[in-house]
Amino acid sequence: MASTVRTKPQPTIHEFELIRAIHRRHGRHTPSVIQGIGDDAAIITSRAGQWTVLTTDLFTEGVHFDLRTATMDDIGFRAAAANLSDIAAMGGTPQHLLVALAIPRTGTSRHVYQLYRGMMAACRPHHVGLIGGDMSASSGGWFLSVTLIGIVPPRKALFRSGARIGDFLYVTGTIGDALAGLRLLNEPLPPAKRHSRTAPLSTRHRQFLIGRHMRPTARVAEGQWLSTHRFATSAIDISDGLSGDLRHICEESHVGADLDLGALPLSPACHAYAASRELDPVDLALTGGEDYELLFTVSPRERPRLEQTALKRGFPLTCIGQIHPLRFGIQAVSSRGQRHWLANTSYEHFT
Amino acid sequence: MASTVRTKPQPTIHEFELIRAIHRRHGRHTPSVIQGIGDDAAIITSRAGQWTVLTTDLFTEGVHFDLRTATMDDIGFRAAAANLSDIAAMGGTPQHLLVALAIPRTGTSRHVYQLYRGMMAACRPHHVGLIGGDMSASSGGWFLSVTLIGIVPPRKALFRSGARIGDFLYVTGTIGDALAGLRLLNEPLPPAKRHSRTAPLSTRHRQFLIGRHMRPTARVAEGQWLSTHRFATSAIDISDGLSGDLRHICEESHVGADLDLGALPLSPACHAYAASRELDPVDLALTGGEDYELLFTVSPRERPRLEQTALKRGFPLTCIGQIHPLRFGIQAVSSRGQRHWLANTSYEHFT
Repeated sequence: MASTVRTKPQPTIHEFELIRAIHRRHGRHTPSVIQGIGDDAAIITSRAGQWTVLTTDLFTEGVHFDLRTATMDDIGFRAAAANLSDIAAMGGTPQHLLVALAIPRTGTSRHVYQLYRGMMAACRPHHVGLIGGDMSASSGGWFLSVTLIGIVPPRKALFRSGARIGDFLYVTGTIGDALAGLRLLNEPLPPAKRHSRTAPLSTRHRQFLIGRHMRPTARVAEGQWLSTHRFATSAIDISDGLSGDLRHICEESHVGADLDLGALPLSPACHAYAASRELDPVDLALTGGEDYELLFTVSPRERPRLEQTALKRGFPLTCIGQIHPLRFGIQAVSSRGQRHWLANTSYEHFT
Repeated sequence: MASTVRTKPQPTIHEFELIRAIHRRHGRHTPSVIQGIGDDAAIITSRAGQWTVLTTDLFTEGVHFDLRTATMDDIGFRAAAANLSDIAAMGGTPQHLLVALAIPRTGTSRHVYQLYRGMMAACRPHHVGLIGGDMSASSGGWFLSVTLIGIVPPRKALFRSGARIGDFLYVTGTIGDALAGLRLLNEPLPPAKRHSRTAPLSTRHRQFLIGRHMRPTARVAEGQWLSTHRFATSAIDISDGLSGDLRHICEESHVGADLDLGALPLSPACHAYAASRELDPVDLALTGGEDYELLFTVSPRERPRLEQTALKRGFPLTCIGQIHPLRFGIQAVSSRGQRHWLANTSYEHFT
């Protein structure tokens, strides 16, 4: 009968065809996936006795990314890495991905393929497969929502609420790099012209910082290690900035903290960038979100074993402070010995 | 030290405060929720041996809803109902909700509360609790992504792929109402002026149809019943339109189908609307998406038991056709006996 109640122009992107193509490229059928893409819902099995970990993150054009400075691959990679990092911060093992994507009028199938390619590039090392999602047109810009499902052994999950007075505060890797990278991308003029009186930033450092922003590493192995050996009493990933994320741990654990600003792990590139722009690199480290390093607390008793095995495994850790009673608040001591209250200066997505 | 690298205007919506308030209002701690809102990820336990069902749906302003005709409560309700319906179509029991929300500059905390209130109103009868999500600013309009997690007994899930030749095709409730309701909302002029020569639509019918669009009922109890008793060989929820969703079943099951258009269950309100607008109500039923009724197939052997117990339980079911071999294609026979190929005229979200 070919009844057509509403007539519509030829669609530029055919939803079902795109979903089929994405399925062919990225759908995976492991024994734990009963039904992947292609039905009303996905079905998975979980190992008996395991807890299921779930996280959702949102990425909107003009707020979380800018197509003038990032490729679709980059955007996909960062979105997946942010979710992987949330599972890492719980000590979990990521397993399955669900992706909801709204595509603007200017979007093409090629953009969509590139976005998924970026996401799967971040997921592949962790054997995470795509099991479902949704696609739609957007009347505004690109909009991406990623849900990641994983597992964690019962009673071994890392919460924000477990920090105890006397625990030492640790961070993985280096911090502040991602914010430096983001700022480099957003500089309106070639830096050579604007900062002629300061030391120029080498191409190598520039590329490192931009790479840290565009292609962050989720600390999945480190999170599992902290959880399996029960090293960490609490953990969070640095997505809002060290200052803000430390506050989350303190609030949830009902404790205070003393942060040693002189001990913050800063990369040579971050130092070089700060020098070239006449900034304090500590400010970048305190407020720079999206480094996706883990911030965690360790009891004094576990500290020697933690540091020994970290060295063996090659996990970069730095002790940056200690947990105090709630009334202590959150304080920071600079390398010159100056003590300050640490206000929450973290980045929030509402401006 | 209150170090502030970037200065920002006072935010109109404070992300963390909003999340805390939503948590207080809607967060639930049932024994299966180890960690709800407030950490890097949510943690749930699943009953031993159960399969986990997951679905994500996307709702964007200007594509899926229009704030000139829908309240935030309505939008939230429909979004949750669409996800509940996906779980229903698998024969599953919905349990946990994750919500990703992008808020435009014009959005207020009040809008957000209303949206969540609508979602939870749809979820409450099914004892579904909010366990997590994400919130962000949007540089465009509202953008909502809902992920629903549920369970289904192993090997009892309903797939699109199980229809067999000879099976009878059934649908729950009535279809076409939601499209009629949507059109009523979008009519540019008062219908009395535009359709003066045709019968006017009563306020009661108008309200019924708009209600079916705004506040659809997810057929969760019906889906569980079809799955538990192994009545259905395949199932799908009608979200793209009967014509399109029947095609999904046929494609996934590698079969054809014969649809009896004279048997389609149409509500009196849908008939009245079609008469008042000089339309064929069958067209509304074939192409109207978002009725969220279940379309399913039943083997001839199970048919008597299905109809008997449906009557006892008060489940409204209608037999609307039969499954044929693949080469038969998808055909429809009108009430006058005219036979047609049924093309896919379903609504897709790309225009």
